[in-house]
Amino acid sequence: MPAVFSPRRAAVIARRIHELTTAAARRWDRASAWSADVLPRLAEFASRGKLVRGQLVLLGAELAGLRPSRTLFDCAAALELFHSSILIHDDLIDNDAVRRGTAAMHIQLAGAVRARGERMHAAERGASLAMCAADCGFFLTFNILAQLALPEATRRKLLALWSEEFALVTLAEMDDVHLSPGSTPAPREAIWRVYQYKTARYTFCLPLMTGLIVARAPAALRRSVLCFGENLGLLFQLKDDELGLFGTTKETGKPVGTDIMQNKKTLYHHYLLTCTPPDVQKRLRTLFGAPRLRAEDVAYVRRIVRESGIYETLQMAAADMAARARRIATRLPVSPALRAQLLQLVKYSAARTS
Amino acid sequence: MPAVFSPRRAAVIARRIHELTTAAARRWDRASAWSADVLPRLAEFASRGKLVRGQLVLLGAELAGLRPSRTLFDCAAALELFHSSILIHDDLIDNDAVRRGTAAMHIQLAGAVRARGERMHAAERGASLAMCAADCGFFLTFNILAQLALPEATRRKLLALWSEEFALVTLAEMDDVHLSPGSTPAPREAIWRVYQYKTARYTFCLPLMTGLIVARAPAALRRSVLCFGENLGLLFQLKDDELGLFGTTKETGKPVGTDIMQNKKTLYHHYLLTCTPPDVQKRLRTLFGAPRLRAEDVAYVRRIVRESGIYETLQMAAADMAARARRIATRLPVSPALRAQLLQLVKYSAARTS
Repeated sequence: MPAVFSPRRAAVIARRIHELTTAAARRWDRASAWSADVLPRLAEFASRGKLVRGQLVLLGAELAGLRPSRTLFDCAAALELFHSSILIHDDLIDNDAVRRGTAAMHIQLAGAVRARGERMHAAERGASLAMCAADCGFFLTFNILAQLALPEATRRKLLALWSEEFALVTLAEMDDVHLSPGSTPAPREAIWRVYQYKTARYTFCLPLMTGLIVARAPAALRRSVLCFGENLGLLFQLKDDELGLFGTTKETGKPVGTDIMQNKKTLYHHYLLTCTPPDVQKRLRTLFGAPRLRAEDVAYVRRIVRESGIYETLQMAAADMAARARRIATRLPVSPALRAQLLQLVKYSAARTS
Repeated sequence: MPAVFSPRRAAVIARRIHELTTAAARRWDRASAWSADVLPRLAEFASRGKLVRGQLVLLGAELAGLRPSRTLFDCAAALELFHSSILIHDDLIDNDAVRRGTAAMHIQLAGAVRARGERMHAAERGASLAMCAADCGFFLTFNILAQLALPEATRRKLLALWSEEFALVTLAEMDDVHLSPGSTPAPREAIWRVYQYKTARYTFCLPLMTGLIVARAPAALRRSVLCFGENLGLLFQLKDDELGLFGTTKETGKPVGTDIMQNKKTLYHHYLLTCTPPDVQKRLRTLFGAPRLRAEDVAYVRRIVRESGIYETLQMAAADMAARARRIATRLPVSPALRAQLLQLVKYSAARTS
């Protein structure tokens, strides 16, 4: 992690996640036997994340000259709670059992049902409870926004920004669900759209904009940072795809070839199934989505990616994003120290191995 | 439907649901191939409802002297869109295929996936897409709130109210999921809690309060109407349970005995399995949750309800709620015409047959 993401700040965000959630659990305890279970569980789950989005809220505000404050930490905590809730729905959609090194929420809650001595339909009830828990997390995010000590005009801007970007990320997720199965290559534009709305805008622009809005940054600065965030986010996603294909288990935390077996609709997938000779495509189609891969299968896909020029094409695209992000960072009217942090963030995103 | 729920008003709410959703679809079209499909589908689904919540927003405002306005209709539309989204998640939880006389959203979207020529995992993808569509509906509700022409202090109050009541209804739904399976009777307090948070506060108090807040009603009036709404809501729920047990298919739109087969955790269920002789309880346990019921089984349950005094007990509870609601309505500082409407609403809730 680059130095801009300080462990000290992460600790404060995690603490506020717990405090805000505990306060909500106390207020909402009367409504349900589950408040006292699911809200602390949500806080625990949220604070296990890297808290990148929360850190970006603080960075966004600093770019406009506002130092970290209680309000900013609370915005950071709110967005992290939202993100954890989205991940709960994602894990239900993908039927993933593990997240952040622990059991996914639906698995946890199926366990909670069993722990109450009830074994009937525990898995289904775990899934239903997890869907509700995530919904509760969404509304908690907005409830925190309602309570922030902010000028009302700022609150309204955050409400407009959050509600719109949250809607966009769910719509982009629908595209992702739709593109997922089958070995048909997805159109390049559709893949870029998912990259833009699921990663770039949601993960990078939204938290940076949140910080800028709280700091009442001028429109010109907001536009530049938005553009910086989009390029940084796309760079991050391209690197993610590269790691998915070339990373070791140690680097990615996933078995080698997971992206191939999951038939993930990356730009690699697109080019491999549209820009290679027919006989190569034929073999590739047997590998994408295969339940198991041999080491030589993964090696084959990697070799084709390199030999076909796809690797070079996507490296160039990534270098292009990095260059644009650096150019914007260089021109931003911020202190040399902050500029150095932004450049370091670009470097990290381009060179990271995990 | 009582006259207070005017078809003309329902038509305006439905129109605003369509207009607000169409505007969002246009703005969000760039994010996903699904925006143009799912947002109109959500509007169509929302406007098929009875729009009771939307009408209660208008009524709440009128109690404080504010006539229906564009802003109020938009609040009504926003709450109806939210409610439809919650129903989409409910139908996923209960695995219900039909809603509002048409296919449930996950069934509709599985059909949309198939219509695009893709048959693989269409049912699972329909469920995933429906979960996302509902999430999008939640955020659209808050996005509409961000755009309303309201004083900022009023917007903040609505944001606080909506986010809290939405969170409470998801927590109450978790209780409902938890109480659902098995024939063990749920504790009476747990059943009342679900009635209060899933029906009374969410369906009645929340929209009435929304109208009162927009109309900037004084705190004393808000408190009285809140109390009126709670009693009306509990009355409504008790009547719902009665219809579930004694109603005909023509009245309820569901097969006779559905509540018994679904093992619904109503107060009838509680008393039947706790306050009847052991041999009766033994037979009842074979009927609750049974996949099929004979006409004589339903008749048996009905007879026990009557002979054991459970029917009378719950009728008295309902009469008590109705009396309290009437007493509050009589004392409210509103015009005779509005008072008559409130009393008519109580009468309708106590005597409705559908």
